[in-house]
Amino acid sequence: MVEQLTRRGFLAASTASAATAAQARKPNVILMYADDLGYGDLGCYGGKIRTPNLDRLAREGTRFTQCLSANPVCSPSRAALLTGRYPTRVNIPRVLFPRDNEGLPKDETTIAAMLKPTGYRTMCVGKWHLGHHPEHLPTAHGFDEYFGIPYSNDMDPPVLLRSTSAKLETVEAKADMTTLAGHYTREAVSFIDRAKADPFFLYFPNTFPHIPLGASPKFRGKSAQGLYGDVLEELDHGVGEVLNALKRNNLERDTLVIFSSDNGPWYLGSPGPLRGRKGATYEGGVRVPLIMRQPGRIQAGKVSSTLASTMDMLPTIASFTGAKLPAKPLDGIDLTPVLNGKQLALEREALLYFDNWNAQCIRHGNYKLHLARYNSQIYSPPPASGRINLPLPAPELYDVAMDIDESYDIAAEKPEVVKDLTARYERLLAGFPKEVTEAWVKTKSLKTRGDTGAFPRLAPQ
Amino acid sequence: MVEQLTRRGFLAASTASAATAAQARKPNVILMYADDLGYGDLGCYGGKIRTPNLDRLAREGTRFTQCLSANPVCSPSRAALLTGRYPTRVNIPRVLFPRDNEGLPKDETTIAAMLKPTGYRTMCVGKWHLGHHPEHLPTAHGFDEYFGIPYSNDMDPPVLLRSTSAKLETVEAKADMTTLAGHYTREAVSFIDRAKADPFFLYFPNTFPHIPLGASPKFRGKSAQGLYGDVLEELDHGVGEVLNALKRNNLERDTLVIFSSDNGPWYLGSPGPLRGRKGATYEGGVRVPLIMRQPGRIQAGKVSSTLASTMDMLPTIASFTGAKLPAKPLDGIDLTPVLNGKQLALEREALLYFDNWNAQCIRHGNYKLHLARYNSQIYSPPPASGRINLPLPAPELYDVAMDIDESYDIAAEKPEVVKDLTARYERLLAGFPKEVTEAWVKTKSLKTRGDTGAFPRLAPQ
Repeated sequence: MVEQLTRRGFLAASTASAATAAQARKPNVILMYADDLGYGDLGCYGGKIRTPNLDRLAREGTRFTQCLSANPVCSPSRAALLTGRYPTRVNIPRVLFPRDNEGLPKDETTIAAMLKPTGYRTMCVGKWHLGHHPEHLPTAHGFDEYFGIPYSNDMDPPVLLRSTSAKLETVEAKADMTTLAGHYTREAVSFIDRAKADPFFLYFPNTFPHIPLGASPKFRGKSAQGLYGDVLEELDHGVGEVLNALKRNNLERDTLVIFSSDNGPWYLGSPGPLRGRKGATYEGGVRVPLIMRQPGRIQAGKVSSTLASTMDMLPTIASFTGAKLPAKPLDGIDLTPVLNGKQLALEREALLYFDNWNAQCIRHGNYKLHLARYNSQIYSPPPASGRINLPLPAPELYDVAMDIDESYDIAAEKPEVVKDLTARYERLLAGFPKEVTEAWVKTKSLKTRGDTGAFPRLAPQ
Repeated sequence: MVEQLTRRGFLAASTASAATAAQARKPNVILMYADDLGYGDLGCYGGKIRTPNLDRLAREGTRFTQCLSANPVCSPSRAALLTGRYPTRVNIPRVLFPRDNEGLPKDETTIAAMLKPTGYRTMCVGKWHLGHHPEHLPTAHGFDEYFGIPYSNDMDPPVLLRSTSAKLETVEAKADMTTLAGHYTREAVSFIDRAKADPFFLYFPNTFPHIPLGASPKFRGKSAQGLYGDVLEELDHGVGEVLNALKRNNLERDTLVIFSSDNGPWYLGSPGPLRGRKGATYEGGVRVPLIMRQPGRIQAGKVSSTLASTMDMLPTIASFTGAKLPAKPLDGIDLTPVLNGKQLALEREALLYFDNWNAQCIRHGNYKLHLARYNSQIYSPPPASGRINLPLPAPELYDVAMDIDESYDIAAEKPEVVKDLTARYERLLAGFPKEVTEAWVKTKSLKTRGDTGAFPRLAPQ
């Protein structure tokens, strides 16, 4: 079967069977996002937990091995996913708490707000974490409906809300963690069944496996990986139910399905072969699973090592749906040429690794340069002075293809790469809000020795 | 060729070729110990650095995949290696610094002191780190000769000493890191050539790859893993020179060769598939390579997953040499039945994981129970209150065979194992010095919530 990609959004098949009939110009979009999932947890990523539905999704679509979240923690990561812009550009540099009154700024365009003008029905099911006051909820950002806990499930109170433009109701004052996944799956499937006549966008950011964990009786005790494994098996089951709803409604070929996660594993969960966990700008804190499927449009059974970002979702969705891009400049790129097999890898601007306002690393291709790190991640035991972003005495360079766990600093071997990446870093940083540039100036002014203890010294060579 | 193990220390061969002639009743012993080597660095442990000599040693001997150092940092680890006793029993609970006046207590018997009465010549080449004043140096603990830096190479001043019973001289006031490995190799080989007429014990605790790193011009820039890789290739070359010296002197069959390391990797270096690094009681902080070779006596080409400890070296050496065990009770066991293939695994008492006076974990077979952890390793960002050992709200249980990177807590699934390990833990702790039991009482009195932030909560199941 020969397929040709003609106009953006339109794919004609040369054989006219029902299975290869012209796909919708405006495909549905389902964006599933896990919370604190480990890069090494899923079966298709080499993990031990049974995730047959996600494994199948990967077999039927393209799986990415080098997708970076824009940030190693929740709120900023989600801000970047939904806007295609660095969290530090959209004023969500850190985790939001119930005491916070802020939220995603009104003048930032989410994927939902981008799709609404073209007639999409939109719903968010799960964890929002971009402001919990009514004026910040999903319904203020392009979503017709919202069902979920508006921040992390370990925040108090873990209230389960249902919100539409008409009303806001409390479903559970303190969400029951053992029934939450079931609720989410039911709401997601229900939305698909209700919305199928129109193009729809379902954003499904699951609460799990962020702690506290909970699994329903059907799943509790079934995995070989304790409660965490049970929770993931239930999460995978939910993915299966969503995929079944597409199949049941004959929407598989007309739906772009995406699965990813916000950052590396926290206390439990496996980062696979990577170094670091949630909160760190080592790969283990920011490299996340990414699976994308649309039969007939995205290559099946492919594994791509192109450097990708969760910020690429918005521009890629725009490309697939024909939606008009937001006015503000994007940091993500359109992955279409890799997804349809036209290119093996994409040229892209280097990616920056931030935590809070602090830039710490830069990545270009397989090279990753670390320029700064928190004192608490340098000194052991960590100093009692609170967390400060310190400049590394000499930048550390890693080839993450050859050295996946960032063990062997080759900065001295590749001075030209260090020079190039450092120049890119400074150039890129200059284009960020002043909080970023001021934080970097402050970092550079600090010393890494002194009363916090001697930083590792490399003998002069 | 059928070999029979008859009396301890004697192995008779049924064919009388020169290669299988009766082995020495008192074999030479070479104990090589690296510093901060990563479990995943060596070729034979799946690493990328070229270590052909250590790989060959492993092929000609038995390699252990579950050897634990008794402590995740330098001084205590070495105290345990040399005495076969937990560091907390021999009053070396923490790293020693140049400002410290303490050292290994005089009434503790090192491997060297154990072998001296039976006529062994003994030398230590490398990092001692059990007290740097003359009354604490190796020459006060059973070694005829000492050559090395008496503490870590990042401590000031990194003085290179030569010590015998007759004199103590400074070889370099500040050791040159680029020539140090070469000095050590030369001294080790020279000792073998000088001592070969007697049974000898060479303890060779290399300074590297502890930082600051240094490699000689012959090795600098040759590996694909930067300076760290160059240093390891030079370290491996030194191992090769030692093995060549044995071959040259026809001592291969009469020498027990051991290679291990003190704790997990610090800033650079790979922990392989393990979680954590130097300083942590996750496996990555304490699981170390262990290779043992004596042709004709130790099985060649074997890989053993029996739970072993660096504390097993002293009793195993006693078994191989016929030396009289020290008076004080040992925590290590004799690995001979696994080494000669009579048993696949050994029954042993559970092993405790300490850092400083703080017991944190217990291991029995493949089960590992975590009961306590430092607040700085729990909370992110770490609290400003300094490092405190906190009780985990609920112990965490890992099956390290199925879950090598300690990702999936199965405590709730295996309450009987938790109960058993907790009981062993309390029983074992009661036999330790009061500093240990007092530290544990203090830990148990603390709460894991409050002003240090909420500890991860598990939803009740």
